[in-house]
Amino acid sequence: MASAHRKFWGWGTEDQTATPDERALITKALGARFQTALPTPVAPPKVEEIVLPASRLSTPANLKRIATTDPRERLIHAYGKSFPDSVRMFQRHVPHPPDVVVYPESDADIAAALDWASSAGAAVVPFGGGSSVVGGVECDVGGSYKGVITIDLARLDRVLEIDRQSRAARIQAGTYGPALEAQLKPHGLTLRHFPQSFEFSTLGGWIATRSGGHYATLYTHIDDFVQSLRVVTPAGTIETRRLPGSGAGPQPERLFLGSEGIFGIITEAWMRVQDAPKFRASATAKFADFFAGARAARALGQAGLYPSNCRLIDAAEAAGTGAGDGSAALLVLGFEGADHPLDAWMARALELVRDHGGNVEQPKAPSAHREGAAGAWRNAFLRAPYYREVMVPLGLIVDTFETAITWDKFEGFHTTITSRMQDVLKRVTGKPGSVTCRFTHVYPDGPAPYFTFQALGRFEALIDQWRTIKEAANDLVISAGGTITHHHAVGRDHRSGYVRECPQLFADALRAAKSRLDPQGLLNPGVLIDPTDRSVGIRGAMAPS
Amino acid sequence: MASAHRKFWGWGTEDQTATPDERALITKALGARFQTALPTPVAPPKVEEIVLPASRLSTPANLKRIATTDPRERLIHAYGKSFPDSVRMFQRHVPHPPDVVVYPESDADIAAALDWASSAGAAVVPFGGGSSVVGGVECDVGGSYKGVITIDLARLDRVLEIDRQSRAARIQAGTYGPALEAQLKPHGLTLRHFPQSFEFSTLGGWIATRSGGHYATLYTHIDDFVQSLRVVTPAGTIETRRLPGSGAGPQPERLFLGSEGIFGIITEAWMRVQDAPKFRASATAKFADFFAGARAARALGQAGLYPSNCRLIDAAEAAGTGAGDGSAALLVLGFEGADHPLDAWMARALELVRDHGGNVEQPKAPSAHREGAAGAWRNAFLRAPYYREVMVPLGLIVDTFETAITWDKFEGFHTTITSRMQDVLKRVTGKPGSVTCRFTHVYPDGPAPYFTFQALGRFEALIDQWRTIKEAANDLVISAGGTITHHHAVGRDHRSGYVRECPQLFADALRAAKSRLDPQGLLNPGVLIDPTDRSVGIRGAMAPS
Repeated sequence: MASAHRKFWGWGTEDQTATPDERALITKALGARFQTALPTPVAPPKVEEIVLPASRLSTPANLKRIATTDPRERLIHAYGKSFPDSVRMFQRHVPHPPDVVVYPESDADIAAALDWASSAGAAVVPFGGGSSVVGGVECDVGGSYKGVITIDLARLDRVLEIDRQSRAARIQAGTYGPALEAQLKPHGLTLRHFPQSFEFSTLGGWIATRSGGHYATLYTHIDDFVQSLRVVTPAGTIETRRLPGSGAGPQPERLFLGSEGIFGIITEAWMRVQDAPKFRASATAKFADFFAGARAARALGQAGLYPSNCRLIDAAEAAGTGAGDGSAALLVLGFEGADHPLDAWMARALELVRDHGGNVEQPKAPSAHREGAAGAWRNAFLRAPYYREVMVPLGLIVDTFETAITWDKFEGFHTTITSRMQDVLKRVTGKPGSVTCRFTHVYPDGPAPYFTFQALGRFEALIDQWRTIKEAANDLVISAGGTITHHHAVGRDHRSGYVRECPQLFADALRAAKSRLDPQGLLNPGVLIDPTDRSVGIRGAMAPS
Repeated sequence: MASAHRKFWGWGTEDQTATPDERALITKALGARFQTALPTPVAPPKVEEIVLPASRLSTPANLKRIATTDPRERLIHAYGKSFPDSVRMFQRHVPHPPDVVVYPESDADIAAALDWASSAGAAVVPFGGGSSVVGGVECDVGGSYKGVITIDLARLDRVLEIDRQSRAARIQAGTYGPALEAQLKPHGLTLRHFPQSFEFSTLGGWIATRSGGHYATLYTHIDDFVQSLRVVTPAGTIETRRLPGSGAGPQPERLFLGSEGIFGIITEAWMRVQDAPKFRASATAKFADFFAGARAARALGQAGLYPSNCRLIDAAEAAGTGAGDGSAALLVLGFEGADHPLDAWMARALELVRDHGGNVEQPKAPSAHREGAAGAWRNAFLRAPYYREVMVPLGLIVDTFETAITWDKFEGFHTTITSRMQDVLKRVTGKPGSVTCRFTHVYPDGPAPYFTFQALGRFEALIDQWRTIKEAANDLVISAGGTITHHHAVGRDHRSGYVRECPQLFADALRAAKSRLDPQGLLNPGVLIDPTDRSVGIRGAMAPS
């Protein structure tokens, strides 16, 4: 199986984890910070330690070749990669794994799996890299289904066609980030969509969740890179026309961008790709005040310069990753392109930064985004997913939530979220926690703030503690005017916010569309909208007691 | 009434028309070109010359204040501004005007009008500026309705709120282009969306039809300027959340962008606006070969420079507007912005132009886009809508169609369209006609070619002749891989292409959404998708016999 060595309790493959040095550092830092002795960490789970319910489905002959009920496979596909996902694995608590995992090798295989689900009364959970942090791929679908089939697209992993003139490529949906870039590279092309999950997420997953890439401005989500789509639904296959632009009715691709698998399974897409960049300019700047940095980011976002990187990191978060001493917010600024030197762009950007009180540290080398403060932060950003499996067994609650908000509301929003979240962390855990913020993306009309919180919980109570905090965060973000998610998707964990954000009649229109494309409601029940049940809760049925 | 002096047989108001000099020039040029004596032109119609069917609806008391059955009003709202619309007015042929025209002054008025339509069994046609060139506002809705109510949004014409920090404005949907800009100007802001129809089209119309503005790259359609929407549907009101970006499910605004009024009536939008530009750079270049110019446009579109103007005009079309001698294609290139001088941008763009064989004519003055070849072309572009009322009575068939196509297919596409359209013009009219092309917008993955055709028909037969040509154009564009419309919308005239372009299951999903938002199918029946009838034809029931 393609994902045989995938870690089921954390990020990456089983041979990848935090180094002993990183572990020692993390443990020491947490002990010092919370002024307490930390518990002896629970060891990572082994497959045989987790009791799984027997598979309820019997694979038909035509799918045996590509189906498995192997326990490790069921575990790998039971959860995504969120904090509570990791906690539940360390707690050995997996009551709702998929009954069967299918690895289709063609659209016909997917159609056959959907036919099987239809006749068996089983739900279907589409699975890309399984990197969801919002409960997007789990199989707790309620009692009205006779089983759950997870469809893992990992074998649909090829770049099928290249159109060099139009800079476009037809790519199968199960292609992982690195494999996608490796197949484009010989053509001098790159998609240049680098979410934090890049290594363990797929094109189809990016499209289904409106993933946010590394471009901080302009092409923030995957959306604008999608030229056309192919989607296999229970009612048949939809293929949109390859076009650079069109005004013919509502854009069909937009119904599937962010649809989280509820209408059908995206099997391939023509993607707009880029020439590999030849020119880079990067710089960092420090701001004594986070809001001054935000005003600089606003000026940069409104100037028509379109930096590829424009990440503002607050002082505490910068310090926490070794990119600062905690006295200043850090702005990481970059331009990249294949056509022309970017000096004029950077020069003007730095004028704007200085105009807003930024203290610019200009780098010397073209690889500067890998050095100095920016490099320290970048390294921490890439390593962070591996640290969770160190922190969870120590009882640390560590999670993030991300949003977007217009500039007029931003400062009040940030102040409210930060102080109210600190109250919640204290109330839930009895000790002060931390809430930090960075901008992942910057628009002319507002930033996408990304909050990280940490608090010391109790290992046995982590799920309940986390749920209380997460519900509070959802409520705060929506009450204060933000979006429930800028690029992590809705899944199950954001539904309490999504029902408040999404106009009811629009949700009804989506339900109506679903009733045509997936009339039995087989696909990913429980995420985004629920075709039958409008009640909402975060994994209400799933709390370990 | 707000549109009392609007011309019902052509473009603009009744006091605006081609000058005597322009008339003489046009008549002389056409006579010379077609080597024939032109007929004596029919005079423009007067209201009293057109026999209208009696209004079938009786306005309820609560709407009398804002409703009218005045014949001139019914005529103004009977058609859009396409070639066949003008022909039918000159032919005094208006069998299906609206029964009543309503001018709502609030969302409540719209809800009341929809309630009336519902109880009266009447269809509702939303009307912005009425500048549709695709049959988007006409009232030939078939026999299953007891009447037609046109809802003209002209009294919802205000900018309601400004958020200077986020550069956004809340604007009522009936606001015309000039009024919109006039209300933004005191704040130093501008929407900078300038379709050719700008003077006589509205924000709501732009959104409902995915209008294309003057920006040749990046923000080509109105789409990306829409921050949030308010839509009154027969099932209730939808208001989306004001956000700079979001990844929460399919983007709700996208269901209404391009919906052509079939789901509801857009009443207001928060729009992303711009600082008024302070910096401009412009240039023109000549190319001996149109395809060489296209390759330059491709390079410009792929360079990450984002010119505001990048219009390539073929030699014949440039010559026809006084912008060239017919020996060379013309590229009109421009940059604009509010933040920084654009010399570095233009310098690199001109390198690319020269690399592709362009002969650059650099301008002297900052107002150069209003001078020289670019100025001549710009002037003709703005005057062209007024020339139709001169040409139609002479029997000239003059129309346009616009599309988009990926670069890999472009050259073959252009060759096929041009030669096959010339065949069709000759076959239909017995004389050679002309087919010219320009790019209105340029994407990294392909251009938006805009074709203009002219042929000498017979005044009495113009509708039949036009319909044959238009159907041929629809078929050619779709067969050769383009989109049926880049920014004119689908309306009724493009439906034969739209049903081939739009995946059937996506059209079904739209129908399902409509069944929820407009369960009685009151809104704009016959455009885009038809909720009941899947057969297609261009105004099949409307041909004058």
